[in-house]
Amino acid sequence: MYTSEQWLTSLISETPQEGFELTMTLSHRGVKSTQSVPEVLHRLRADYANDANGLTTASQVIAINLL
Amino acid sequence: MYTSEQWLTSLISETPQEGFELTMTLSHRGVKSTQSVPEVLHRLRADYANDANGLTTASQVIAINLL
Amino acid sequence: MYTSEQWLTSLISETPQEGFELTMTLSHRGVKSTQSVPEVLHRLRADYANDANGLTTASQVIAINLL
Amino acid sequence: MYTSEQWLTSLISETPQEGFELTMTLSHRGVKSTQSVPEVLHRLRADYANDANGLTTASQVIAINLL
Amino acid sequence: MYTSEQWLTSLISETPQEGFELTMTLSHRGVKSTQSVPEVLHRLRADYANDANGLTTASQVIAINLL
Amino acid sequence: MYTSEQWLTSLISETPQEGFELTMTLSHRGVKSTQSVPEVLHRLRADYANDANGLTTASQVIAINLL
Repeated sequence: MYTSEQWLTSLISETPQEGFELTMTLSHRGVKSTQSVPEVLHRLRADYANDANGLTTASQVIAINLL
Repeated sequence: MYTSEQWLTSLISETPQEGFELTMTLSHRGVKSTQSVPEVLHRLRADYANDANGLTTASQVIAINLL
Repeated sequence: MYTSEQWLTSLISETPQEGFELTMTLSHRGVKSTQSVPEVLHRLRADYANDANGLTTASQVIAINLL
Repeated sequence: MYTSEQWLTSLISETPQEGFELTMTLSHRGVKSTQSVPEVLHRLRADYANDANGLTTASQVIAINLL
Repeated sequence: MYTSEQWLTSLISETPQEGFELTMTLSHRGVKSTQSVPEVLHRLRADYANDANGLTTASQVIAINLL
Repeated sequence: MYTSEQWLTSLISETPQEGFELTMTLSHRGVKSTQSVPEVLHRLRADYANDANGLTTASQVIAINLL
């Protein structure tokens, strides 16, 4: 849930691609803040990464974070 | 539903990570405003935290709150 | 559907929490404008308030209304 | 699909509630532009107006149109 | 996928209704850029135009394009 | 996941249609950043490109990236 680890120091990125990669990090952290158990995360990640709907929804979260 | 508890005093946060954590709070409160019974919340939270689709949708709500 | 009842006089709120509660009202009214029969609303509300996906989607609507 | 009927003359409304009602119109027109057969529309409207997920998604479309 | 056909020359429209119709075009092109085979498009369009969820999601895409 | 390949040099496009095509690229990269195995991507792409819901969701991701 809430973590003491300092993982997000800035929302500003040097290049568009760094910005895109920041949105990937934010999207992952959104998942990780809901499910923090690594084994479960790993298993569920395989679920959505191997499901058409899961892939489009994951891309949608990245698109929203890129706004 | 509507609560007398003062839980949201500001939408401004000191750091990006505090801002991300505020979006987690807002997302949870959105759920809690729809279902206020703790036992039901706890059971349903386990549902979406252990479902690939549930995790991506939860991350999506956090992303929208971060806009 | 369209109502003669004056329920929305302003989109401006005094405090962040009042703003959050306004988004709850807007979200409910969005549901009510689609289904105005109280008994049906009450029954369906129990459906989504007791379903993991229903809860995250409800929180998503609140997040969008908060933008 | 595309209609010669002039139904949208302005996106500006006099009051917040008129603005909310405009979003209801826009949401309906979005549905109608996809399915223009009245009988089918009427039948499918009953489907989503009597389904928990359908109601929250309809409220979500209204919320997006309100942005 | 990517087309040499010049179909989008401007995102500016003369009237609100033209703007709404532009969002319909953008939404269709978003579908067409994912599935370019006309027969398949035609068949799948009938699917979502005759499904309550399909209709609300289609209206949601139009609403997002109208932002 | 994160790639050393420089694929995104700018978010600014010369024409509206180039902008639309950039959103198609961003949407694809959002999928590819979640599933990088080409064979799996190819198989799942056929899934969502041949499913009504998949097509509307794909169009939705493009619309969000166009904002």
